[in-house]
Amino acid sequence: MNFTVTILGSGAALPTLSRMPSSQYINCNNRHFLIDCAEGTQVQLRKYKVHFQKISHIFISHLHGDHYFGLVGLLSSMSLLGREKEIHLFGPPELEEILTTQLHHGGSRLSFNINFHSLRFDVKEKIHEDDVLEIFSFPLKHKIPTCGFLINEKPKLLKIDAKKLKDKSIEVEHYKMFQNGLDVKLENGTIYRYQDFTFPPHPPMSYAYCSDTKKDLKIPEFIENCTVLYHEATFLKKDKSIANSTMHSTTIDAAEIASLASAKSLYVGHISSRYKSDEDFINELKEVFGNSYVTHDGLIIDLFKQ
Amino acid sequence: MNFTVTILGSGAALPTLSRMPSSQYINCNNRHFLIDCAEGTQVQLRKYKVHFQKISHIFISHLHGDHYFGLVGLLSSMSLLGREKEIHLFGPPELEEILTTQLHHGGSRLSFNINFHSLRFDVKEKIHEDDVLEIFSFPLKHKIPTCGFLINEKPKLLKIDAKKLKDKSIEVEHYKMFQNGLDVKLENGTIYRYQDFTFPPHPPMSYAYCSDTKKDLKIPEFIENCTVLYHEATFLKKDKSIANSTMHSTTIDAAEIASLASAKSLYVGHISSRYKSDEDFINELKEVFGNSYVTHDGLIIDLFKQ
Repeated sequence: MNFTVTILGSGAALPTLSRMPSSQYINCNNRHFLIDCAEGTQVQLRKYKVHFQKISHIFISHLHGDHYFGLVGLLSSMSLLGREKEIHLFGPPELEEILTTQLHHGGSRLSFNINFHSLRFDVKEKIHEDDVLEIFSFPLKHKIPTCGFLINEKPKLLKIDAKKLKDKSIEVEHYKMFQNGLDVKLENGTIYRYQDFTFPPHPPMSYAYCSDTKKDLKIPEFIENCTVLYHEATFLKKDKSIANSTMHSTTIDAAEIASLASAKSLYVGHISSRYKSDEDFINELKEVFGNSYVTHDGLIIDLFKQ
Repeated sequence: MNFTVTILGSGAALPTLSRMPSSQYINCNNRHFLIDCAEGTQVQLRKYKVHFQKISHIFISHLHGDHYFGLVGLLSSMSLLGREKEIHLFGPPELEEILTTQLHHGGSRLSFNINFHSLRFDVKEKIHEDDVLEIFSFPLKHKIPTCGFLINEKPKLLKIDAKKLKDKSIEVEHYKMFQNGLDVKLENGTIYRYQDFTFPPHPPMSYAYCSDTKKDLKIPEFIENCTVLYHEATFLKKDKSIANSTMHSTTIDAAEIASLASAKSLYVGHISSRYKSDEDFINELKEVFGNSYVTHDGLIIDLFKQ
């Protein structure tokens, strides 16, 4: 079991040598996802040793360049390296036209299929599901249509306590009943209670991604009780007026949303290049929400360690 | 007087941690140009301390992504930083549609005007001129329409030898006549020969950029006697068959073109990521053309030092 988020870019619109713009790689129980894909993402993936051909789903939150200008380059490189496996791409509907135009004029055809899924920007919507997780998009409030994303683990099976099974006449096929919380009744009438042979699983975890957005009180409903909330905090509170005019958030906005959502931890990013140190960010966040962190490029957030 | 080329990306299509894809910054007598603009160019410009708002003209050789995917990001950053000065953009005609589509869907408008100039791919053509230089495009042979570029300094004025002017009754306005190779005749009949008060200027220099292309024997005519030839050498000679099928050049191809063009120096780039060392490249180039070099990211080529 694993659930990690690798921050590939922690900066806002202007890339700098210390902070690249938004992109994150998520490994959830060996499912491999990319959220946003700013210019330079493919090199960040190499730098942080992510095998990018494993990525099966890419989610683009909105069409500001600092969230997707690296997409066509990453897809081209996947193709040059001979990828055959289809990729699922979620984004605003116009993204498909942008990619098609670029690839067409470059005279190139990708070596794999893109399965494109248009996002909605008016409701929370389940956009992907498999046997261990569900992914939702939900609306944020920014200058152009923008989505947040929520990755929820599904409730897990009970865990078998192998020591207690010893010397019991229990067949392997009964294990699944125990894992699902069912008792086993043998032909001779013996009843084995599932509680005696299992222990509880790790509770399901969830990761919420909110970038870019002004403070929006609907967000806590969409992501309630998430394990980790990544929320943009482009500005310090003294720059609230710039945050308002650009429809971004401050430290205080992000921390209040984390608090209202009862998140376990808050990680902020999309930090404006005007600030040279994290210290003021940390101090302001902790005024409102204790378990707060400022991300940096290359940071790996382990959801099991929150 | 200065004429330098800064290599921002020396690699081929796949960016790696050691070689980014094609882009070059040229400072020719304090005119500031960019040739090609692969993904990551804006960060490379920061890394190598080029003040990118100074760039007035951008030249895109063709529409393969490793030569232009960084353009929209660079233009967006110039705009975010408040640029007002118009930029001249030269490229294949479809480039304008690609940029317009991306900027439109991002809901953004640049803070400055782009003056777009369509390139031709059938003839050598003068595409820019000012009082100290001329720039030409010329056709290369690649999978899609592709241009090379040639930057020629204009013949320079003779240089005034200030020491020799001392104690002579020569007015400042006569200097210009000397600089243009004209004698000065005073009212009293004295004739001053321009040769006695000037020394010859540095001969005009020229820089030729040829990437991407198969070996094309028309190139030497287009760039004859250039000071520095930058030519792609994606492959070593053992991989000639891949060079043929992808319409790229080998070391030997590049060196032969340099030799036929009577270039003073050859610098190769667009090196495939499959090769881990420069040594074989250097050895193969020097078999054919002695004054050969392999570029690396961050290399500054000074045309005065060739």
